[in-house]
Amino acid sequence: MKLTGNLLIGAQEVAATAGSMKALNPATNAEIEPLFAFGGIDDVDRAAQLADDAFDSYNGTSLTERAAFLESIADGLDAITPELAQRTSLETGLPIAQLEGEAAKSATQFRQFATVVRQGRFRQATIDPAQPERQPRARMDHRMQKIALGPVAIFGASNFPISYSVAGGDTASALAAGCPVILKAHNGHPGASELMGRVIQQAVRDSGLHEGVFSLVRGGGNAIGEALVDHPLIKGVTFTGSETGGMALFRRAQQRPDPIPVFTEMTSVNPTFVLPAALAARGGTIGDGFAERMLVTVGQACLKPAILLAVDGPGYIELKNTMIARVEATQARTMLTPGINAAYRKNVERQSNAGAKRIAAGGETQGAWDGQSVLFEVDGANILENPLLSEEAFGPAALLVRVKDVEQLVAIARHFRGQLSATMQIDPADYVLAARLLPLLERRTGRIVVNAFAHPQEVSYASIHGGPFPATSDSRFTSVGMSAIERFLRPVCYQGFPDEMLPEALRHDNPCGIWRLTDGELSKA
Amino acid sequence: MKLTGNLLIGAQEVAATAGSMKALNPATNAEIEPLFAFGGIDDVDRAAQLADDAFDSYNGTSLTERAAFLESIADGLDAITPELAQRTSLETGLPIAQLEGEAAKSATQFRQFATVVRQGRFRQATIDPAQPERQPRARMDHRMQKIALGPVAIFGASNFPISYSVAGGDTASALAAGCPVILKAHNGHPGASELMGRVIQQAVRDSGLHEGVFSLVRGGGNAIGEALVDHPLIKGVTFTGSETGGMALFRRAQQRPDPIPVFTEMTSVNPTFVLPAALAARGGTIGDGFAERMLVTVGQACLKPAILLAVDGPGYIELKNTMIARVEATQARTMLTPGINAAYRKNVERQSNAGAKRIAAGGETQGAWDGQSVLFEVDGANILENPLLSEEAFGPAALLVRVKDVEQLVAIARHFRGQLSATMQIDPADYVLAARLLPLLERRTGRIVVNAFAHPQEVSYASIHGGPFPATSDSRFTSVGMSAIERFLRPVCYQGFPDEMLPEALRHDNPCGIWRLTDGELSKA
Repeated sequence: MKLTGNLLIGAQEVAATAGSMKALNPATNAEIEPLFAFGGIDDVDRAAQLADDAFDSYNGTSLTERAAFLESIADGLDAITPELAQRTSLETGLPIAQLEGEAAKSATQFRQFATVVRQGRFRQATIDPAQPERQPRARMDHRMQKIALGPVAIFGASNFPISYSVAGGDTASALAAGCPVILKAHNGHPGASELMGRVIQQAVRDSGLHEGVFSLVRGGGNAIGEALVDHPLIKGVTFTGSETGGMALFRRAQQRPDPIPVFTEMTSVNPTFVLPAALAARGGTIGDGFAERMLVTVGQACLKPAILLAVDGPGYIELKNTMIARVEATQARTMLTPGINAAYRKNVERQSNAGAKRIAAGGETQGAWDGQSVLFEVDGANILENPLLSEEAFGPAALLVRVKDVEQLVAIARHFRGQLSATMQIDPADYVLAARLLPLLERRTGRIVVNAFAHPQEVSYASIHGGPFPATSDSRFTSVGMSAIERFLRPVCYQGFPDEMLPEALRHDNPCGIWRLTDGELSKA
Repeated sequence: MKLTGNLLIGAQEVAATAGSMKALNPATNAEIEPLFAFGGIDDVDRAAQLADDAFDSYNGTSLTERAAFLESIADGLDAITPELAQRTSLETGLPIAQLEGEAAKSATQFRQFATVVRQGRFRQATIDPAQPERQPRARMDHRMQKIALGPVAIFGASNFPISYSVAGGDTASALAAGCPVILKAHNGHPGASELMGRVIQQAVRDSGLHEGVFSLVRGGGNAIGEALVDHPLIKGVTFTGSETGGMALFRRAQQRPDPIPVFTEMTSVNPTFVLPAALAARGGTIGDGFAERMLVTVGQACLKPAILLAVDGPGYIELKNTMIARVEATQARTMLTPGINAAYRKNVERQSNAGAKRIAAGGETQGAWDGQSVLFEVDGANILENPLLSEEAFGPAALLVRVKDVEQLVAIARHFRGQLSATMQIDPADYVLAARLLPLLERRTGRIVVNAFAHPQEVSYASIHGGPFPATSDSRFTSVGMSAIERFLRPVCYQGFPDEMLPEALRHDNPCGIWRLTDGELSKA
């Protein structure tokens, strides 16, 4: 597929209206062809108008039709996987095998959401039939279904340049819900973004849908993102990235005359609690597993385990030594962008300044944007006293916390802000203590993992990639897993409708054959 | 039950710490005994601390235990209904029979939510079993359930002083979700609020729950509400009232260091579209039904139909004449509070100033806070030109719009902001036009009614009392109906848990016998 660098506004290719850029190869700091167009407010407006024009017909697609569209995107991704992985690797420095995995995961997500659409449960079809004889007042027929929120803006993430970007879970779940999507491409991988955008654009065309169902825009500064968040026809926003960036968008959207929902997935240190019996039995294995995970994709993962808490005692030294050994054996590797690299260096320094003791470091950096792995250690009292120590350092750094006793471990659990995930390493002798920790973790995290680490993210029905602030801006939702679709749906009640005017999910004979709640009972009747 | 005027902070009675007030009888403008305490920031803090202390145990109640608690509130409401209706009538000027109906509705809501709790579907229990043989990577066991959001603040409304107040649907759904509640009582009916608050306080005690599950506070100005919205231990807010009040709370909560969800139900004109065949066949009946609804409870209802749109033609004169006749036959009646009365008079003047022609008025006002019924008429072109005409006038006023033709009717449908409800009056010959209007209404309203009016609100599984801004602050939720509980729930994923550590909704043998989604299939297995 030839890259043109154009914006994709509906079915159109749009050349630069506000400057342009080239991609950078982070391994060599060299520019890569071609030029990529920056758009302006007019481009956003055109895309938003098209998305709004597309809304009624796309929201009105049948379950079968919409599912087939999602599958055609999956097929399109499969077809370009080698090319996509290669270009993405050039632009991000990530290994091709990892990116092929991401592409496969993206295609799988579109197929999973196609299944979710066919199942039709997302409609939450609910029927309370008329009760003309009810006293003191007859009940009219009431039926409810969920429909799409409206056109939405999705900000592509940088760290998983395929599976959290143009063809990521946000796009898949928004399209599954029936929302036209305007994708704000991340400038860290413009070529990869265009390749994925063209797959979706082509699928829209092949499926005979309104061209406004998908557009891809790109800009040089914040203006294009702000224009998207401000646009009156945009009814929802999703974002994955830093707390600063996420909160700027969130607060901006809340200042609109008509505030709109913004789901931002931002920051998490994914604490691991190693309980005493598990530590004594397999401290070395746990330390090794943790260090392996913290180093995956140069630590640039929202689910990177960044803090390990263990009560000092049998197994602690083995745990510490295996962590040190693995970190020291790691070569420095290229990070995604100069900005991420600079922030990482600053955050490592912040940890040192906050009193964390550097106990291991990986190989020295070679390239300008390489990230050197670092392991710090502090005492439990330190982390309670200095909240900076519990902040994320996005990159291959982690903090080992030597906890004095069980009470201090519980106190530290209470002290964490919201997290995407937390892990407990436990043996049966730890279950009583684990049961004490569990409600503390439930209140603070979207996912609790036992005897494993949170990464990689499974994409399934029960998956949750969310959590209380600042992990996300709304703990009631998830950005990964099949319930990610709920962010993009809203209920509508139909009262007293003649059957022929009802949407298909609510007709008397249930033509879609979906699960429905009738008078409080689930059935496919 | 003796009224003390105290705040109810957990199990305690708390005397005034920041002034006090007496209730006013709106019919006579006379003060009613006793004094009611105002609390301050310390009282909010104490209530929030208690609510936080109560969270783990209350969130952890079994379905049976929680349902029984909700039913004991319902029983308590039944037991005080005559006393509650009498006191509320004194404080609000509303008729006793109407208030007895509200009390019955409130009790019913608690019983309905008890059923929802026992059914356990609100947990959305979801299980993706381990797949140790899966390639290229084994899948761990993933399980998800929804738990309570945290302690929440609920602002009682003024217009339905029982069923949208202390013992209203917000409280019922929050308690059903497992959230401790701090209720900010409305000063329009302090005695009624205390009576209901005591019922809930007693039910907490009788059920052996932590006292922090419920507190009732009251304040003189905005300070106590602001303290609630700002408190770090409060994790969600609901409000029913004006757009100004609702948006102030909403925007304040979004400025917290950790923004929290705020659901505000605010303003709606509930437009009625009378289509040509229905107009010709039964214009008079429709006009009479509309006027009857607009005058219920002196027009002080969120679902009051405030705008009727009809294409000029056969039936229009009959419709107009029946509306005029009913409005002219109406006596002026006492409105809820001096503030509401003053706003109503101002808004009626605004309609006149905006060019609406006064075509009928009810009896002259006698009491100082009486509201005189008014009917205005404008041409379709006017409402398109002047957005003020589509604003709510909370009280017994309505606007008849003489629409030029079908195209103008469609244009007007596009022009409305978000609404709680809209109505179409249609005969079979209107179905084609109705199908054209339907997607426009779906995008703008939470409920669409055919051949009836939205009021009164049915409370059932399919009920939706929500809608796009400014009807509410988040169109994805509802404040009435069984899905109101969703505002107060968030998902947690449990990965790799031993069975004995799982919450009951997710254990292998499904001890609660609830519906669960296993590998994408619903069952009670």
